[in-house]
Amino acid sequence: MSFLFVLEMIGTAAFAVSGAVAASRKNMDIFGFCVLALMPAVGGGTLRDLLLDRFPVFWVADTSYVIVALLVAVAVFFGVYRPGERFRLLVWTDALGMALFAAMGTDISLAFGTGPIVAVMLGVTTAVTGGIIRDIMCGEIPLVLSKEVYATAAFATGLIFVAVLTASDNRNLALIVSTVAGFTIRGLAITFNWSLPRPRVRR
Amino acid sequence: MSFLFVLEMIGTAAFAVSGAVAASRKNMDIFGFCVLALMPAVGGGTLRDLLLDRFPVFWVADTSYVIVALLVAVAVFFGVYRPGERFRLLVWTDALGMALFAAMGTDISLAFGTGPIVAVMLGVTTAVTGGIIRDIMCGEIPLVLSKEVYATAAFATGLIFVAVLTASDNRNLALIVSTVAGFTIRGLAITFNWSLPRPRVRR
Amino acid sequence: MSFLFVLEMIGTAAFAVSGAVAASRKNMDIFGFCVLALMPAVGGGTLRDLLLDRFPVFWVADTSYVIVALLVAVAVFFGVYRPGERFRLLVWTDALGMALFAAMGTDISLAFGTGPIVAVMLGVTTAVTGGIIRDIMCGEIPLVLSKEVYATAAFATGLIFVAVLTASDNRNLALIVSTVAGFTIRGLAITFNWSLPRPRVRR
Repeated sequence: MSFLFVLEMIGTAAFAVSGAVAASRKNMDIFGFCVLALMPAVGGGTLRDLLLDRFPVFWVADTSYVIVALLVAVAVFFGVYRPGERFRLLVWTDALGMALFAAMGTDISLAFGTGPIVAVMLGVTTAVTGGIIRDIMCGEIPLVLSKEVYATAAFATGLIFVAVLTASDNRNLALIVSTVAGFTIRGLAITFNWSLPRPRVRR
Repeated sequence: MSFLFVLEMIGTAAFAVSGAVAASRKNMDIFGFCVLALMPAVGGGTLRDLLLDRFPVFWVADTSYVIVALLVAVAVFFGVYRPGERFRLLVWTDALGMALFAAMGTDISLAFGTGPIVAVMLGVTTAVTGGIIRDIMCGEIPLVLSKEVYATAAFATGLIFVAVLTASDNRNLALIVSTVAGFTIRGLAITFNWSLPRPRVRR
Repeated sequence: MSFLFVLEMIGTAAFAVSGAVAASRKNMDIFGFCVLALMPAVGGGTLRDLLLDRFPVFWVADTSYVIVALLVAVAVFFGVYRPGERFRLLVWTDALGMALFAAMGTDISLAFGTGPIVAVMLGVTTAVTGGIIRDIMCGEIPLVLSKEVYATAAFATGLIFVAVLTASDNRNLALIVSTVAGFTIRGLAITFNWSLPRPRVRR
């Protein structure tokens, strides 16, 4: 079991929790929990694979991702795992998944031969798409489009991945450094309530 | 004209009705009727084909699906075909399309070389994705995520397809048995108002 | 720099403005501006490429599209470019992008070997999908499904492209004629407030 695989399962579970928690807030049934857990867990990576023509799609090739997400959905649904202060936890598990997925998405795109600009874009895509679909399915404007430094942290994660990989030629090092950096940026943003600027003259 | 093809046209028309009825409830114009009819009719199968890298996508290869859906949209729009008790009909045509599409989606995935877990997932995907997009386009939280035994019936349809195919090695038999079983489960759920459990401690 | 490329950049910028304006109405941050600008600018063409199995996707092959859309997002965000009467401008830039994208989408599909029916459908898909995703991300029912002659103009653009190409065998002529025709139809619809009929008996 590779280092990358362990990281991926952690990120998958973290994102699935965010989906299951969203489903519980909308009073969905168990199928809703499963779909909402799957969206952030595998949605972004699925779009990345489709855009790269990378087949089989990662969760078709290895069903671990799907099984982990569904186990999380069932555990949250039946209260086996209870996020007590739900919103706080949602924010932090989301931060972990975001940094991991952005780094891995950038990595996969580069390995698939895209240039660095597209690779960073697909890293951000991997990190944020599933959460956007989760929010849309809950009937809400996606949080990531208007609140706090989220996508910016994913963007920084991708840039740092490219920089460290270029400097060190060490993929695992680039993954660790960029994931930790992205998680730290996001954590600081949560703690100190950072927000991106919005247009002032536009009201 | 194969048995499978006739089944597919019935399922396509049934799903298209659900979309056209949704468009009429939202007071859309004729283009809205066409898009909303197309989404459930071809949306799920399109996502399945994209995820399987199966090209040309089924409705590009054979335009019958699109033509049937558009004819339904026009017929409902101009009142040639009038679903009198609209909501009841919506529920039953939806049930038929759901069972057919889940069975066919599972069939196609297996024929394309996926394992049974992914095949059942893609069967459910074929059955429910279009309806989810239809509901999102109407500005509503997808019905399938929170109300009644719908996706569960699609899931059962897929499982029964795999079981019957394994036991009999007869594809048409597996299609008939699993479609009838799925439609029956859904029909019982509608008649007796079955619902999936929702989390109790979570309010 | 080909004639087609210049047309494409104009259409991309026009569609990106519609997204950035939508983001400003929803009070999004700069990342929201970027995503909302990208959706109409590259969303429809991306779906067309995925459905045609056409890789690399156009904006992965050539990052100009993405760069233009992001520059527009930044310019609108910081007020460098200010759409004064915002809603009027939105409507006209949208009209230009719509006609251009419908013509180019039909062109690309035909060049990729589809029949004329599918080509016109994918032309319409190229023109309207991004705007639909933009509206959904803003939490609104997509404008194109219920208001005015929009998709119909895209449909006419595709039909005219096929007709002119068949008659003249001149791709650039077909692009110009069908784009001008589509823009004119849409412009007349805006000016004279044309709407598609809606069902009367259905209230």
